[in-house]
Amino acid sequence: MKHNFGAGPGILPHEVLKQAAEAVVDFNGTGLSLLEISHRSPEFEAVLNEAVSLVKELFSVPEGYSVLFLQGGASTQFALAPYNLLPEGGKAAYLETGVWANKALKEAKFFGDVEIVATSKESNFTYIPKDYTVPADAAYFHITSNNTIYGTQLHQFPKSPIPVVCDMSSDIFSRTVNVADFGLIYAGAQKNMGPAGVTLVIVKDDLLGKTGRKIPAMFNYQVQIEGGSMYNTPPCFAIYVSMLTLKWLKAKGGVPAIELENNAKAKVLYDAIDSNPLFKAVAAPEDRSHMNVCFVAENPEHEKPFLKLCDEKGIVGLKGHRSVGGFRASIYNALPIESVNVLIEAMNEFAEKNK
Amino acid sequence: MKHNFGAGPGILPHEVLKQAAEAVVDFNGTGLSLLEISHRSPEFEAVLNEAVSLVKELFSVPEGYSVLFLQGGASTQFALAPYNLLPEGGKAAYLETGVWANKALKEAKFFGDVEIVATSKESNFTYIPKDYTVPADAAYFHITSNNTIYGTQLHQFPKSPIPVVCDMSSDIFSRTVNVADFGLIYAGAQKNMGPAGVTLVIVKDDLLGKTGRKIPAMFNYQVQIEGGSMYNTPPCFAIYVSMLTLKWLKAKGGVPAIELENNAKAKVLYDAIDSNPLFKAVAAPEDRSHMNVCFVAENPEHEKPFLKLCDEKGIVGLKGHRSVGGFRASIYNALPIESVNVLIEAMNEFAEKNK
Repeated sequence: MKHNFGAGPGILPHEVLKQAAEAVVDFNGTGLSLLEISHRSPEFEAVLNEAVSLVKELFSVPEGYSVLFLQGGASTQFALAPYNLLPEGGKAAYLETGVWANKALKEAKFFGDVEIVATSKESNFTYIPKDYTVPADAAYFHITSNNTIYGTQLHQFPKSPIPVVCDMSSDIFSRTVNVADFGLIYAGAQKNMGPAGVTLVIVKDDLLGKTGRKIPAMFNYQVQIEGGSMYNTPPCFAIYVSMLTLKWLKAKGGVPAIELENNAKAKVLYDAIDSNPLFKAVAAPEDRSHMNVCFVAENPEHEKPFLKLCDEKGIVGLKGHRSVGGFRASIYNALPIESVNVLIEAMNEFAEKNK
Repeated sequence: MKHNFGAGPGILPHEVLKQAAEAVVDFNGTGLSLLEISHRSPEFEAVLNEAVSLVKELFSVPEGYSVLFLQGGASTQFALAPYNLLPEGGKAAYLETGVWANKALKEAKFFGDVEIVATSKESNFTYIPKDYTVPADAAYFHITSNNTIYGTQLHQFPKSPIPVVCDMSSDIFSRTVNVADFGLIYAGAQKNMGPAGVTLVIVKDDLLGKTGRKIPAMFNYQVQIEGGSMYNTPPCFAIYVSMLTLKWLKAKGGVPAIELENNAKAKVLYDAIDSNPLFKAVAAPEDRSHMNVCFVAENPEHEKPFLKLCDEKGIVGLKGHRSVGGFRASIYNALPIESVNVLIEAMNEFAEKNK
């Protein structure tokens, strides 16, 4: 058995994968594969409708918001957010908490002015800046809720006088969030929601249509809303697997239940790191991510042998991102606590051997 | 057994579906699903590289062209083609052969002037206009090689003094094409190449970077080329299934071999329609599509009972597009001649009953 700590595309529930595989051969007894049926068929429309309903239910999406399943990943949303929300000649505010936040703000510069309200770049993004003022004259304030590479997470969302736009790619559905506090939420599916190839967008309808900018159909949230995420052929399989994953989450008790599990997994793992003399967590303690636990070996020569031991125990995907080094244990929704325990055992065993 | 004549997402080879289903549970014996491995893993990089190689081999892509697997469907390419190829203040030429061509040219208007060199709109697109001059002062000439809704196909590609941009979504890999005659080819995968969720782009490198326009990363072909289709997380599963489908095509003898099969399937079906007193093909004979065979009942009251008979025989997806009515038999690469024969038998049986 493998213990999949990969940062993404990340682990998905076993039963979801099993059901997805069946649908690839025969979808719901239709005698056809899910991959070869029309997206306009009642069968697929039911899948998409259920996926949208599950998002609304699991995230308590209030009235006045639209839920979209689009293509292109969060990187496309980096451009679509300003394309749709930043008026000609206007300004957007960004919190720079890592490479992804930086990429997002670079795309915004194609559409208007960008004000970086705060950054932790000088420390290689090991913490979340907190002492800043959101400019009231900007069109929106963009944040990244979880920073996969550095293992930091916003545990409190900022109070903002302007709409908050949030890239939740790496922690969506991992904790309760008050959607009403946001103007736009987007997330690539491939961490907690499904496979690569689909992007969730939750947008407050009354923010749209105010930029004075003409937007090609596929980039226009309003067009996608009117088309019910089917202005053109959607990524049917990725939506289906996301729907199954959301159903799995609902059966587990929804977001509050998984949040408790996630908190418990994060706590035991950080405790194990903190109490182990050979390892050290990277992120500022108050900003530690409950999704991506980044740590390093105190002695860099321990890195390779520890990865080798992990490999022997079926632990995969633990190598840290090249810009941080060390290790990154991604403990997304679908990762069972048993896998965390196997990693902790490996750390303890390694410390015992290298006393 | 079902006979899948659906227009798309369309039929895929049975063995491809079987292998894809296995990979969803355990990819190549890794103990992990294809859906939960990193796109940067050697395993997935091998998939993407093989997919690119197969495109180059099967389509004899010459030096100086790049092959990309992107997201967003052809509808996104409707905007990206002019975004990347139409200079500020420039003009693009379009051949209007249907709804999709029309959508493509509408998107180009966001980026410059559009000249419609010819249209068959007045006849509800039942033929391909041939008597026109391509303006030498336009940046490119856009055509749609096959028109799914109306069952028409360009059997000869135009001579053009300017680069030809071609939407080949519904007939790519169904016939030999001289890629060197094109500046840009794009195609949503979901007819002949794979499942929905990935788009093939073949672009001539030296056409890029000449618009004087700044382009956000995800919309910029040059950025996608430099990132090797992995500027961000690609749609891994859709690329994998496309790779398997291309491998299947190669094993069958490649594009020339499937072209012979496609021609044979189209011939027997059009012959059966032409010789049946109850049915009538819709498209101009010289422009009949070898992918989508559109026909109607001479007596509209025969429509429902014929669809009912088809349903009894396991024939699915035969209903015509609402803008044309009648029937549309999509006979893509993966549809076996046996299924065509079942449809012909149904037509003959129906004619016999309704003499």
